[in-house]
Amino acid sequence: MLPFIRSDLAKLTAYKAHPSSNTAEPVAIEFDRLDTNESPYDLPSDIKEKLGWNFQQIIESNRYPDGGHQILKEAIATYVNESANLSSSTFTDANISVGNGSDELIRSLLIATCLKGEGSILVANPTFSMYGILAQTLGIPVVSVGRNEDNFEIDLKAAQTAIAETQNPPIRVVFVVHPNSPTANNLTTAEIAWLKSLPEEILVVIDEAYFEFSQTTLVGELAQHSNWIVLRTFSKAFRLAAMRVGYCIAHPDAIAILEKVRLPYNLPSFSLTSAIFALENRQVLLSSIAETLSERQKIITELSTHPALAITTSDTNFIYLRLKANGSQLTDTILQNLNQTLRNQGTLVRLLPGALRITVGTPQENARTLERIQNALKQAK
Amino acid sequence: MLPFIRSDLAKLTAYKAHPSSNTAEPVAIEFDRLDTNESPYDLPSDIKEKLGWNFQQIIESNRYPDGGHQILKEAIATYVNESANLSSSTFTDANISVGNGSDELIRSLLIATCLKGEGSILVANPTFSMYGILAQTLGIPVVSVGRNEDNFEIDLKAAQTAIAETQNPPIRVVFVVHPNSPTANNLTTAEIAWLKSLPEEILVVIDEAYFEFSQTTLVGELAQHSNWIVLRTFSKAFRLAAMRVGYCIAHPDAIAILEKVRLPYNLPSFSLTSAIFALENRQVLLSSIAETLSERQKIITELSTHPALAITTSDTNFIYLRLKANGSQLTDTILQNLNQTLRNQGTLVRLLPGALRITVGTPQENARTLERIQNALKQAK
Repeated sequence: MLPFIRSDLAKLTAYKAHPSSNTAEPVAIEFDRLDTNESPYDLPSDIKEKLGWNFQQIIESNRYPDGGHQILKEAIATYVNESANLSSSTFTDANISVGNGSDELIRSLLIATCLKGEGSILVANPTFSMYGILAQTLGIPVVSVGRNEDNFEIDLKAAQTAIAETQNPPIRVVFVVHPNSPTANNLTTAEIAWLKSLPEEILVVIDEAYFEFSQTTLVGELAQHSNWIVLRTFSKAFRLAAMRVGYCIAHPDAIAILEKVRLPYNLPSFSLTSAIFALENRQVLLSSIAETLSERQKIITELSTHPALAITTSDTNFIYLRLKANGSQLTDTILQNLNQTLRNQGTLVRLLPGALRITVGTPQENARTLERIQNALKQAK
Repeated sequence: MLPFIRSDLAKLTAYKAHPSSNTAEPVAIEFDRLDTNESPYDLPSDIKEKLGWNFQQIIESNRYPDGGHQILKEAIATYVNESANLSSSTFTDANISVGNGSDELIRSLLIATCLKGEGSILVANPTFSMYGILAQTLGIPVVSVGRNEDNFEIDLKAAQTAIAETQNPPIRVVFVVHPNSPTANNLTTAEIAWLKSLPEEILVVIDEAYFEFSQTTLVGELAQHSNWIVLRTFSKAFRLAAMRVGYCIAHPDAIAILEKVRLPYNLPSFSLTSAIFALENRQVLLSSIAETLSERQKIITELSTHPALAITTSDTNFIYLRLKANGSQLTDTILQNLNQTLRNQGTLVRLLPGALRITVGTPQENARTLERIQNALKQAK
């Protein structure tokens, strides 16, 4: 171990990015990539052409990007107001900060609140792993509670106890996803009521990465809760995972702090331009959501007929699949085998403890995947 | 103040990105942008065209980037070996980590070494401001020493004393730039000898952002010093400031830690591809350096004849300009006026305490700037 490295970092393992993503080399097998909750569709070619033209004619590669993000922030504010049926003056650029994916915003929030032994964070597992991973790299303690096995509601009693009893440092941030990944459910009324009850010295981060699929948002509550922050992303419904653009909506004082903490040129020029283009073309880009939702229903309906599978509802663009014999020792072995069989046949899904998370892809991808799952389960009998 | 924010963050002011950079809107006046040490030249149009084509035909906007950076790391290792006349097997991808600009790497290094009260950092002012700014956002103490007023050598006696006497927490990282910004000088023999004398529990970060202009590197020393890390960037000589790609060269154990700490998808696909293209085309891109160096000499020679100016040598693509009456109360006023006059006439330079930093631009930009400086100083008499 190098003697200048923090001792607590040695134990951590690096987050392994999934191999299905953009690589500069062609992949030998053409996989159906249903493992990272991306949109199955690239930007339409006319938009890509315009972006390519913009790069060639407008963007100066040799110049630093616009570090102020003004135009993008204004466009985001307009979209957020519109997406929640709020008056066009509700949110302005002063309510928006933009990051290198939501990941950078999560890190900035952790830095702004919990460093120097000032705070721990609370998460309810299973949930998006990055909150815990980024906290650990910063040496911030992570307190975890569980969820109801049926509807995936956070164990609110355990959460409340954790907040009451965690000291040195106390819980300073609660992270929730709305809808949650990997369990695909929106926050329940009880969960929202609990978040509202939290004192103002606890930051509540509501990650709405999948908002465009759920069409349910809590941004309308921000005015009443200066300790709430909503995260969103261009990586899912807006089809820009390759560009790394996330944003958050919050009280201007919180935004001012995030602007202090972020890297001054955190977004490349081409990413900035792409996000602005995506918002300008939002009607076209978001028009594929209807198909995703109807495909999701088709998958759920079909898999629900299988006696071995436990499928729950989904408020987003992926399915959380468990086995009815959940919790038995066999479960994880069966799921591992199913995951491997799917991979061998060309479908990538995400293997989790006790579950598979399957992204809704194109109709063709979904049809192939359904067939492969059903065949694999027949063989397993 | 929001009660969930770290109290020590309130005092910090946000780093203001300079307004001369890429904005999505056309700028009213066409400035000569000599304030951020960028290359004055965009990529040649045939390379931009190929990159634009790559975006349209190869990159899938909807897919996450390659989070492993393998191809880029291998290309960087080859370039680093070649650039230092080292055997082609000296550095491999295991010695390279890639960041969202060097800024992200600086932040990762600070996170990996100094958090949890484990370390302070040492800088010698004036130097690149980002080390101190990023440390402060993380709550890490910054210890500063000065430099010799004539040759800008670090006050090594003060530095040694600072290391001996700083406790709770001790100095864990020393940041140097080679050549230094804003003073434009390479590390001296005495400075290098001092860095070699530092114990292995102190990380030495050598920022070679301007290596392609100085053609002087310390990467050949890395094998002897597992506590040294060299930073480089694509933002200067490689003309890719818009893309935000920096890298570091280090012992594989240090690289493994940086890979743990960085955001998993820290580089957008287009930035990755651009950096790979830049390395493939390095002979073309770096061919403009000869002009920059001869222009630099022209500017220094011409300004040195002016009785009021104190010009020092430069090992990089910018000039550090002071007044002979340095230190007098008038100095800063004269420099502020000179900076403003230049701006009014269309030249942006960087105003610093007691100095102006002027990037070497195109021959036309340099000629205009020289004339404007000389006229302004005539008027000031």
